[in-house]
Amino acid sequence: MKLSELLQEQELGDWRRTHYSKEILPTLDTKQITVMGWVSSTRSHGNIQFVVIRDRLGEIQVTAKRGECSDKVLDQLSHIKEHTSLAVKGKVRAQNRSPNGIEVIPTEVRIFSLAKQAAPFTIQAKRSTVGIDTRLDLRAIDLRRNFLRSTFGIRHTTLSSVRAFLDAKGFIEVNTPKMIATATEGGAALFPIFYYSKEAFLAQSPQLYKEQLTMAFENVYEIGPIFRAEPSRTKRHLSEATSIDVEQAFADYNDLMDLLEAMIKHIIDSINDKHRDDLESMHSTLPKIKTPFPKYRYDEIIDKLQAKGERIRWGDDINPQIMKGLSNEVFNGDTFYYIIDWPTAIKPFYVKPTSRSEKFCESFDLMYGSLEISSGSTRINRKESLLGNMKKQGLNTDMFDFHLRVFDYGVPPHAGFGVGLERLIMVLMNIENIRDATFYPRDIDRLTP
Amino acid sequence: MKLSELLQEQELGDWRRTHYSKEILPTLDTKQITVMGWVSSTRSHGNIQFVVIRDRLGEIQVTAKRGECSDKVLDQLSHIKEHTSLAVKGKVRAQNRSPNGIEVIPTEVRIFSLAKQAAPFTIQAKRSTVGIDTRLDLRAIDLRRNFLRSTFGIRHTTLSSVRAFLDAKGFIEVNTPKMIATATEGGAALFPIFYYSKEAFLAQSPQLYKEQLTMAFENVYEIGPIFRAEPSRTKRHLSEATSIDVEQAFADYNDLMDLLEAMIKHIIDSINDKHRDDLESMHSTLPKIKTPFPKYRYDEIIDKLQAKGERIRWGDDINPQIMKGLSNEVFNGDTFYYIIDWPTAIKPFYVKPTSRSEKFCESFDLMYGSLEISSGSTRINRKESLLGNMKKQGLNTDMFDFHLRVFDYGVPPHAGFGVGLERLIMVLMNIENIRDATFYPRDIDRLTP
Repeated sequence: MKLSELLQEQELGDWRRTHYSKEILPTLDTKQITVMGWVSSTRSHGNIQFVVIRDRLGEIQVTAKRGECSDKVLDQLSHIKEHTSLAVKGKVRAQNRSPNGIEVIPTEVRIFSLAKQAAPFTIQAKRSTVGIDTRLDLRAIDLRRNFLRSTFGIRHTTLSSVRAFLDAKGFIEVNTPKMIATATEGGAALFPIFYYSKEAFLAQSPQLYKEQLTMAFENVYEIGPIFRAEPSRTKRHLSEATSIDVEQAFADYNDLMDLLEAMIKHIIDSINDKHRDDLESMHSTLPKIKTPFPKYRYDEIIDKLQAKGERIRWGDDINPQIMKGLSNEVFNGDTFYYIIDWPTAIKPFYVKPTSRSEKFCESFDLMYGSLEISSGSTRINRKESLLGNMKKQGLNTDMFDFHLRVFDYGVPPHAGFGVGLERLIMVLMNIENIRDATFYPRDIDRLTP
Repeated sequence: MKLSELLQEQELGDWRRTHYSKEILPTLDTKQITVMGWVSSTRSHGNIQFVVIRDRLGEIQVTAKRGECSDKVLDQLSHIKEHTSLAVKGKVRAQNRSPNGIEVIPTEVRIFSLAKQAAPFTIQAKRSTVGIDTRLDLRAIDLRRNFLRSTFGIRHTTLSSVRAFLDAKGFIEVNTPKMIATATEGGAALFPIFYYSKEAFLAQSPQLYKEQLTMAFENVYEIGPIFRAEPSRTKRHLSEATSIDVEQAFADYNDLMDLLEAMIKHIIDSINDKHRDDLESMHSTLPKIKTPFPKYRYDEIIDKLQAKGERIRWGDDINPQIMKGLSNEVFNGDTFYYIIDWPTAIKPFYVKPTSRSEKFCESFDLMYGSLEISSGSTRINRKESLLGNMKKQGLNTDMFDFHLRVFDYGVPPHAGFGVGLERLIMVLMNIENIRDATFYPRDIDRLTP
């Protein structure tokens, strides 16, 4: 038989998987089964060809030995490359020397799609040896790597545990428009769009919409994309990220800090519960959390920084580089903590000043080490205060008419926060570059794949 | 006391809700409680003022009677308008004549935010008497209407039941970029964006990304925004919609039709289970489903239409107007059904032709009456076929290099579908205008709120 015939690609047809790799146990000895997946490794040993097939739950070894299977099947399995997509029908054999104590003796092979070249990276290594751009250019293949498969499985659990947590507390999931007429935060870092004949922008956050929605639903959350035209090239920024946005009526920032803390705890418990195998295979553990998360006032932090000789003044934002030193010495390494009561002037117009002083506002950042994970606050719920703050910040209040008008109809006191999902995943999985916490990252240099 | 003092707006402070309206039962008789919400109706009756407070779970009547409460409280409650946001502390009284057999005798009122004008619509009516644009201009208030609150509660359950259904089948949730370099479907109806110094577009669907992701994860879904610059003004189109996108490896369009049918059934069962009260209060029932959903070949539909004298030719798309007549006569009213095996030429380039004939492809539309709810197909999983189809459809294949290159690494056979969430909600809730199936609709005329 010619090689081209042997390696003929075929249709799925009426073949269907009977078992996932993980379901093939020694108790199935002698059973006929059909496995499907892609070739994660292949090696020959004289008259024996070993082919490991990976599916979404794990791996199974196919052992083709001359005499035990047809010459055709042996030839087929001897010539396919890693990554080839295929199905194998065969018989299960309990085999102590094989991984998981079983192997499959193949009777028929159906090749769906041949791998035509070798990938520039191996799927086994935790940290890839090639640069991230090489991997991102072939992201779909890169995602077959063990570490990323685990990461995105854990990402899935993060999302489902957030939803379970918030649903149980009576929150409803909302989706707000991503094409908007007015910049929420003033105008920097916006992506402009052509909206029919009008100018519009991509939403940097669902802020004003989620606030409005507390009027009807009280407790709302949205998990969706946010867009920031960040010209910087850092390992912490994406142009398109996923935000977990939460907003609650009849609550203030202290309630929301409690909620966020409980949410983080629930996420970590859920991952520890469902991903023991992933964590073990990565030799990884999740951050330990100590509750309550410590709270440091902005003032305290500035004092500490100044005492360390950092050149920072009251009213400055606190950048991660400066925090890095501090978190190692003062916070004793990587832990979750809050920085609260920021200067009103450096927070957005919708953040409520404290009753103690207009200079400070009821705001918090959730930090992990030097990384900001979340930002939240009590919001202003009265039109005059909001108008006043907008003017102070030099915003064109006419542009916010669509928002201000709802304040004539009883806006409840409310507070909320947004969590950067990718930053949270970075922390949970100890990922160095935020690009590996998202499927297809977007940044100033990258628009494909 | 002056009116301005009586109606002074106050902070939330240390007040917190002790009970939701629904939790206040006659068994709480004589208990001190704190309720919070907004005023859904108010009426006076001599020396008695009735104020109904709405929260996210229901309503509770506050009864202020001269002599039973302080004059201040009576005056406050007599002067507030509907929609005012407030809290009332008081004592529960079992009272047969009150709704739900209970009322609250107020001892203290805290007004958070006064309603300053009357809304142009009432919250009680199922169908509003004012035009949809008036409502949309004040959408946050409009969403306080009973019908919409129920609708979006049911929307929440739809999403959570879809996720529960797919999670149980081993799908993982993904998020793919909304800012893309190349139009998936060719180029019509795209919103252009300025991506730093490059031209880019908003994604019309996650199609190519979700297909790629089957390589690593096999079964994926995404629930997220899609963007279509539809210049038409219909009751079925939005410029920004929510798509439930599902893609599965080692499966064909028949498997996916089975999956979609089971998913629809699961959604309807979940809503019937959790929203009995909503459905009762709306005098509404969900569509009855008969499984399996009937399947009609495209050819059959064309024959039927031609037999009815409709001017349609083989190869034409089937528009809802034409289907309307047919669905009433042939399909016996509103039911879910599939139209399958469409002409290859009118489906996108990634749809796989049937093995029987290249003229037809393995594709389906899920219809409800004359409305298309979902579209799906078996996809092409080989590079040469995909290239061939792209060229036939006049696409610039260079623009798809980022996608085509992954086909060198074993793309599994796969199939998928996308469901328009808002269209599904329209069908489930018998909503006439798709704008009422989304929080803040976007169309050619509307970019705010």
